[in-house]
Amino acid sequence: MGKIFMLAPDSFKESMTAKEVCEAMEIGIKRAIPDAVCIHVPMADGGEGTVQSLVDATGGTLIQKEVTGPLGTPVQALYGILGDGKTAVIEMASASGIHHVTKETKNPLITTTLGTGELIKDCIQRGITDIILGIGGSATNDGGTGMATALGYKFLDKHGKELQLGGGYLSELDQINTTDVLPQLKNIHILVASDVTNPLCGERGASVVFGPQKGATPEMVKLLDNNLRHYSNIVKQQLGIEIVDVPGAGGAGGLGGGLIAFTNSTMKKGIEIVIEYTGLKEKLQHVDYCFTGEGGIDFQTKFGKAPFGVAQAAKSVNSNIKVIALAGSIGKEVETLYDEGFDAIFGIVPGAAEIDSLLARGKENVARTSESIARLLK
Amino acid sequence: MGKIFMLAPDSFKESMTAKEVCEAMEIGIKRAIPDAVCIHVPMADGGEGTVQSLVDATGGTLIQKEVTGPLGTPVQALYGILGDGKTAVIEMASASGIHHVTKETKNPLITTTLGTGELIKDCIQRGITDIILGIGGSATNDGGTGMATALGYKFLDKHGKELQLGGGYLSELDQINTTDVLPQLKNIHILVASDVTNPLCGERGASVVFGPQKGATPEMVKLLDNNLRHYSNIVKQQLGIEIVDVPGAGGAGGLGGGLIAFTNSTMKKGIEIVIEYTGLKEKLQHVDYCFTGEGGIDFQTKFGKAPFGVAQAAKSVNSNIKVIALAGSIGKEVETLYDEGFDAIFGIVPGAAEIDSLLARGKENVARTSESIARLLK
Repeated sequence: MGKIFMLAPDSFKESMTAKEVCEAMEIGIKRAIPDAVCIHVPMADGGEGTVQSLVDATGGTLIQKEVTGPLGTPVQALYGILGDGKTAVIEMASASGIHHVTKETKNPLITTTLGTGELIKDCIQRGITDIILGIGGSATNDGGTGMATALGYKFLDKHGKELQLGGGYLSELDQINTTDVLPQLKNIHILVASDVTNPLCGERGASVVFGPQKGATPEMVKLLDNNLRHYSNIVKQQLGIEIVDVPGAGGAGGLGGGLIAFTNSTMKKGIEIVIEYTGLKEKLQHVDYCFTGEGGIDFQTKFGKAPFGVAQAAKSVNSNIKVIALAGSIGKEVETLYDEGFDAIFGIVPGAAEIDSLLARGKENVARTSESIARLLK
Repeated sequence: MGKIFMLAPDSFKESMTAKEVCEAMEIGIKRAIPDAVCIHVPMADGGEGTVQSLVDATGGTLIQKEVTGPLGTPVQALYGILGDGKTAVIEMASASGIHHVTKETKNPLITTTLGTGELIKDCIQRGITDIILGIGGSATNDGGTGMATALGYKFLDKHGKELQLGGGYLSELDQINTTDVLPQLKNIHILVASDVTNPLCGERGASVVFGPQKGATPEMVKLLDNNLRHYSNIVKQQLGIEIVDVPGAGGAGGLGGGLIAFTNSTMKKGIEIVIEYTGLKEKLQHVDYCFTGEGGIDFQTKFGKAPFGVAQAAKSVNSNIKVIALAGSIGKEVETLYDEGFDAIFGIVPGAAEIDSLLARGKENVARTSESIARLLK
């Protein structure tokens, strides 16, 4: 029997999905070793590609659903139901992500996580009991109040009137009404995929750290931070839940905090969730070589990126598995990764070139590099 | 004892000499395998770098000599004497190369190989008996008449007056006087390193094929081609030597033909000469891995470039030696090289980048790539 190759790359952003990277790797490897056995486990780290990765790995299905986008207009969102039929996987960005706004329309005072809540509600109505929710890439700064609104929570001002959607209006929050909360919500568990450890407010909080990239001016940052603090006080007073200083509460414009306040949720690093739900370790049992990779690899890869998780998983299963990473861009201090489970790291770029032509030729570059690596291994 | 690595790259033009590439390879390999034994044999293919390569490999010495440049003004040329003390190595371009003229001054009607002949004469006067002469990169189209002039031949018009230097005046050639030819010349052997198989004249001749890159207009090409044909007729009539159709006679603006007419010479592919004189095959005897490389590698590499010669040499010594090539630029159809002795070919470029920054960072890129390769091999 031929050597067994695990192919577990993340996507190469703007060039190839993780699945396409797997396919290109196999083409190259088989050119060198025709009887190689290639196991494809497209990876993700909780961000973009997580739904596709888990659906692919478990034989699940994709669901398309029209929901309210971050600006209040409809968007088509995608989420997945895993092969077990009871677990869903959602990327919040699919409903409420920064890619749904433009440079001109981005405005974290009014953007809402309502659509993310609508996806959760859709899952609940389908009888789903477990939801994996990746919270990267948000356009929002609403503390997750939009999400909670979709699930039946009402955010009222002192006149008992519902607030407008968006973090800019939370200064007027006076009470949180739970009368109409979906009764099934208490039976649902949400596993939140997040690598963010920022608290809700303050210098390391959602508004200060992530607000500017969502379009917040310095004045808006101050307003949003004050509003989230006021909101966390109301949550504490009325629900008895402390969220302001919880690590991770600041993820996705405070959606992390909202999930703590309004749902049964646990937070975990994205790559750990993906490794668990793809069954990566079980699939690594009889593997000889493990290929991974990502668009860019550098010393920061070891802070929770997919290739790092894959390398660690491979070595934990069998320290003799050689872990080989490919990347479109090799950044600073990659040699520090040799202490973290990586055996070799290769760039795929064939020479001096513009980024656009490289992105377009990703597959042939992955295949060519994989072929040369496999020829060394045979 | 550690694994033995042969390091036999060509230079990476405009970035690193072959010797520097060897050093960078060793740095990377030793990071992965501290007890690796690295044998440095900087390569060349008969063109630029050949003198340095053979001097380095044999423990020879470099000689600087002021000679007549292609435009008649003095230039500082370098040639080498090999470790045996009796063999010299000359790159004709050092005396008569295209880099000595500018876009404005290049003019193949007047450029001369006189300086190349002066270097040969200098060798003779030092008691050298064997000369290796690389004839790439010339600025000239004089049929080697300048070279012969330096050695005592006289090219006279019908009035018995010496012609001016340069291929533009050969139409006036009436007789070749050999009275003052250096008597030692007949005892000298010149091994000409040339990959060119073009004849002296005609559609595939020196003037038509190589004239334009030396500054010849279409009219000049015609004139030069006619002049070389006339010159070859005189050579045939007076010396009894046929040069017009000899393969290789068209090399270096007809210097190939001049060498046939006026010296004891043999022509051989540059890489074969370099492999022979560096003793590459003997040094490959106990080698486990052979690293080679060049600035650019593509399907044309198999037509006589240094890495091809190295790969062939390694496999001929021991087919188990793994041959691994590095390149700054991976070009078309490199996969065709896998049938030619290459086991693996890796680009060293870390990502999208401008050529200038890549040229400046060649050493770290070679070291990093060599490290990852060596980590796979250990």
